[in-house]
Amino acid sequence: MRPLLLLPLVLSFIITAADSQTLLRTIFEKPGQILRYSSGGEEEEDCGGGFCDSWRLSVETNNAGPWEVVPKKCLGFVERYVNGHRYSSDVKVAAGEAISFAHTVEIAGDGKDVWVFDVDETLLSNLDYYRLHGYGSEPFDPTSFNQWVYLAEAPALQANLRLYKELQGLGFQIVLLTGRDEYQRNTTEANLLFAGYSSWEKLIMRGASDAGKSAVIYKSEKRAELVSQGFRIHGSSGDQWSDLLGSPMATRSFKVPNPMYYIS
Amino acid sequence: MRPLLLLPLVLSFIITAADSQTLLRTIFEKPGQILRYSSGGEEEEDCGGGFCDSWRLSVETNNAGPWEVVPKKCLGFVERYVNGHRYSSDVKVAAGEAISFAHTVEIAGDGKDVWVFDVDETLLSNLDYYRLHGYGSEPFDPTSFNQWVYLAEAPALQANLRLYKELQGLGFQIVLLTGRDEYQRNTTEANLLFAGYSSWEKLIMRGASDAGKSAVIYKSEKRAELVSQGFRIHGSSGDQWSDLLGSPMATRSFKVPNPMYYIS
Repeated sequence: MRPLLLLPLVLSFIITAADSQTLLRTIFEKPGQILRYSSGGEEEEDCGGGFCDSWRLSVETNNAGPWEVVPKKCLGFVERYVNGHRYSSDVKVAAGEAISFAHTVEIAGDGKDVWVFDVDETLLSNLDYYRLHGYGSEPFDPTSFNQWVYLAEAPALQANLRLYKELQGLGFQIVLLTGRDEYQRNTTEANLLFAGYSSWEKLIMRGASDAGKSAVIYKSEKRAELVSQGFRIHGSSGDQWSDLLGSPMATRSFKVPNPMYYIS
Repeated sequence: MRPLLLLPLVLSFIITAADSQTLLRTIFEKPGQILRYSSGGEEEEDCGGGFCDSWRLSVETNNAGPWEVVPKKCLGFVERYVNGHRYSSDVKVAAGEAISFAHTVEIAGDGKDVWVFDVDETLLSNLDYYRLHGYGSEPFDPTSFNQWVYLAEAPALQANLRLYKELQGLGFQIVLLTGRDEYQRNTTEANLLFAGYSSWEKLIMRGASDAGKSAVIYKSEKRAELVSQGFRIHGSSGDQWSDLLGSPMATRSFKVPNPMYYIS
């Protein structure tokens, strides 16, 4: 492989996506591209240096690169993490860093100062769904996930709801950029309103022409369109690196924790 | 601020460095650009959702952006972290992800397949120095740090020493790219050999023309030179985002944990 001269780092994380399903879990065809975790042996540990805590860090820093499912031995760890104080604390601190930065941004007042949010596991929590599906230890099932989306009952990640409202108070326009498909627009809007979000500038969803694109390509293209429309993308919040990387990027990007799944 | 169309994300993290001292801790002049942490109140917690653990995650994901010193209330947390099993476990898992990726790289055998390593807190541990200097809770002092460098006694981060040797075994050429200055070449080479490293292809250090450049600019320029010399930069390991971001980048980048200091 030749090093990337003109393409952003991002491309290094792109592995061909197999189809354009909502929240597609990437299926990798090239053997060896995915780190496969052994499933036995080491005991789970919450603190003090256990493998699962280090694995979670490697996921959050993108060291892990593409991965398919939560390592079997870390299922209990992930379950405790997402249901416990640490997850909400981590989301809260990430939101706090975002708002600290947001306060340094000069808002022009022309309606072009934008913050981009991903939806799933950023604004909306699908934890109730993943609770029934092994917290990411099972391969992604688009059918059952779409049924869950249709219910429109996903609650907000509370810290990000507060961030969202504070950003609006500061004068940012909010753009929602999601991997969900256009046909889910009504149910997605209903869910966002149910969860307490309102007054977004745009809700950008995958259209027919976006089918088959990896998330990082699709989202980069949409950010490029925003820029060409004169918007200034100051900040971006997402639980996937594919929400944040690519070109153009926001001035500052904020990784919301998510140890349950990876989308390229 | 206008969004960055052609510049990599990196530039979002660049704040003017005040001078060109070795391992310069960035000094920020624009008020509000830095998140200042409150020093009292919240109790330290190792596990279970404490602020310091979430702060560490925000540092490792680059959510924190530029920061000056470890928050006072997290001094004990950082001390326990870097002296405990978790740090070594986190370094080990990061190295494991790197070697898993390295095994997927096709080595051409022409001596142009490269892995780039940072030196301080990546190959060499300065923990013995930071133990005497508040584990990053004190502003960086170039004088005393340079005295420490002159001793050439920093030990290896063991997991990265193993990674280094495994990469050599796979046929990678090793390039060391450090923020240390040219005048420290002899002592740096002596220290690397003392710690068990050998047979690197290049040790790139800051020369006179690199004075005043931020780490991310300096390191990006040096990687660009490598690429122009025909090297293929497959992987890069560093404890600072400024080791990894910029253009060109390695195909895959690996963030080595470091909660003690930030270099832009």
